[in-house]
Amino acid sequence: MSAFSFRVSATDGAARRGELRTPHGVVQTPAFMPVGTQGSVKALRHREVEESGADVILANTYHLLLRPGDELIARHGGLHRFIGWMRPILTDSGGFQIFSLAQQVKITEDGADFRSHLDGSRQMLTPERATDIQARLGSDIAMVLDECLAFPATRDVAATSMTRSVRWAQRCRARMQELRSGSVDGVAVSNAGQAQFGIIQGGVHPDLRNESVDATVGVGFEGYAIGGLSVGEPTDQMHAVAGSTASRLPKDCPRYLMGAGTPRDLIECVGRGVDMFDCVMPTRHARNGQLFTSEGRINIKNARYAEDDAPLDPRCECYTCRHHSRAYLRHLYMVGEMSAATLNTLHNLRFYLDTMRRIRDAIVFQTFDSFRQEFLRSTACLSLDS
Amino acid sequence: MSAFSFRVSATDGAARRGELRTPHGVVQTPAFMPVGTQGSVKALRHREVEESGADVILANTYHLLLRPGDELIARHGGLHRFIGWMRPILTDSGGFQIFSLAQQVKITEDGADFRSHLDGSRQMLTPERATDIQARLGSDIAMVLDECLAFPATRDVAATSMTRSVRWAQRCRARMQELRSGSVDGVAVSNAGQAQFGIIQGGVHPDLRNESVDATVGVGFEGYAIGGLSVGEPTDQMHAVAGSTASRLPKDCPRYLMGAGTPRDLIECVGRGVDMFDCVMPTRHARNGQLFTSEGRINIKNARYAEDDAPLDPRCECYTCRHHSRAYLRHLYMVGEMSAATLNTLHNLRFYLDTMRRIRDAIVFQTFDSFRQEFLRSTACLSLDS
Repeated sequence: MSAFSFRVSATDGAARRGELRTPHGVVQTPAFMPVGTQGSVKALRHREVEESGADVILANTYHLLLRPGDELIARHGGLHRFIGWMRPILTDSGGFQIFSLAQQVKITEDGADFRSHLDGSRQMLTPERATDIQARLGSDIAMVLDECLAFPATRDVAATSMTRSVRWAQRCRARMQELRSGSVDGVAVSNAGQAQFGIIQGGVHPDLRNESVDATVGVGFEGYAIGGLSVGEPTDQMHAVAGSTASRLPKDCPRYLMGAGTPRDLIECVGRGVDMFDCVMPTRHARNGQLFTSEGRINIKNARYAEDDAPLDPRCECYTCRHHSRAYLRHLYMVGEMSAATLNTLHNLRFYLDTMRRIRDAIVFQTFDSFRQEFLRSTACLSLDS
Repeated sequence: MSAFSFRVSATDGAARRGELRTPHGVVQTPAFMPVGTQGSVKALRHREVEESGADVILANTYHLLLRPGDELIARHGGLHRFIGWMRPILTDSGGFQIFSLAQQVKITEDGADFRSHLDGSRQMLTPERATDIQARLGSDIAMVLDECLAFPATRDVAATSMTRSVRWAQRCRARMQELRSGSVDGVAVSNAGQAQFGIIQGGVHPDLRNESVDATVGVGFEGYAIGGLSVGEPTDQMHAVAGSTASRLPKDCPRYLMGAGTPRDLIECVGRGVDMFDCVMPTRHARNGQLFTSEGRINIKNARYAEDDAPLDPRCECYTCRHHSRAYLRHLYMVGEMSAATLNTLHNLRFYLDTMRRIRDAIVFQTFDSFRQEFLRSTACLSLDS
């Protein structure tokens, strides 16, 4: 995998500062990946996403498989060319959306049988197909297909599911190696340098997590994700499981905590050795008028902002804070203007990506722990879980 | 009115190239004004509107009166400061939306009595109040309150309405002079250099139009609008009435055709002496997937674009055409992404504003008529009315 590499350049406690090289450019870690579900970060143009400081975006295989279809995207030379985003892209396997969105889902050893939530059409996603689809999309980082469990799951259910996920990971990797060797007909590989990450499961059970780490690392991937968290378990438990799992993963590979999280999750889990994050929170909250600031969270719908001349956050340098008042943003939100979604998303994304930038600096300057304490103190009300 | 001036710098037939100076900057004419109904051009940030080449936007008094209210805006120092758009703004009087949106509208000599379409609250808009509201908003150009008739109107109905509009224009002007002299208490004037335009009515009846011109010009305004067109009359008749009305207006004042129009309307009416236009067509059509190009109109929903790798318009230099294919734009539209509205609006607005730029050049170089013929030939399918 010459096109893909990862290097840790500094550490501070368990926190790691690194650089991920991909066929479409470098990602500075710890990194937050904005979610571009259907090939677009909602309410933004790609240029705005780049200007917000994002090195990489996440796209959802399930959505793109249904519309416009992976084969159509492959005919356009892959997802980067199709959507016109020329920087790194990570695709998930589609599994999470099958469990949360699709209908009549049946899981067998072979894979996931489901009906599209859009038109009811029958689909079968096997580990091999999830790998093929992502090869056609040509993302820089592909994820293995895994089984996503709801919280809480009994130990037995979590164990059965975890061992199945390991077997699926083996099949995904075998398929990836076939694709790389060029021995598969009928799959147009859009990105020869695509990396593949395994996913650690095992719920909140330390022994199952350890077993999953050993088996998945045994298969051998370019990076490892921590899956099955942020699904309803208590926050402290989530941080603890993410941390103990991260600490057992290979030091020379990137570690990605899937689906997290709050600003507090980001900083707590960087402090426990996580390198990559994705979450819809900054973008979805923005569209709902929930805004992150250095002084706490703002619900822009609140009548108290009707005449507030101040920017959302006096310390923020985003377009929204440099040009507009809370009063105008509230007006746009209340009258239902689309530009409310755009301006709010620009701000929240900047808050997240600036937080990551500050985290990276703090690791380099060996001040991560004091930064962490100061950040959590000043933005205590940011945690949705508190 | 030292802050406001208009100068014609070149003519080509009846077409005029000019410069309108306002307290918030210069407007090159002939000019197209994008519509920012509620203080935002839908789906765009202000910077994008500027970068598209707009010198001036239009905002709707009716909408801003209801939300967030003219007094709140005045407390923020006026509309420019409230919305953060520091270039020229024209506000309408609110009349058109009262006739098209409001409920239980009753017109008396005093003004328009109506109920808000939002909450049913009772409102009274008199010529004086329409003038006061726009003074609070502090737009660079305010419009007089006039009565808007549906087409067709009998000559008698049109005559009665036109003469009432003239009396209202006199009252608007008298109120404006009081505001300028500082003799009105309780109205915070946000823009001391605000100009006021009269509006010519009279339907499609030449004698009534002439009578309205004489009476309105007799009152004396900084500029004159041609109202009551683009309401259902045949296109050729609209152009003829606009042209004959424009030809009777003072040469040293700007002439604004309200609510028009199609690209064909713009070029035909510039050729008949009109200097300013506004219309929701480029922005509304964009949100509905209707796109203007140099080769004709595109309905991006059409399945034929599903795999079309070309930009919307190979001759266009907008962000959308430089970055994205028709296939991606169709995908975004079909899956309902907000960015579809943004990207489409950027393109349509650029098409309109580039057309105006080309028109201005053609007048300067005395090639307006050949430009007009070439434009109408190559973009014949652009007219919605053909």
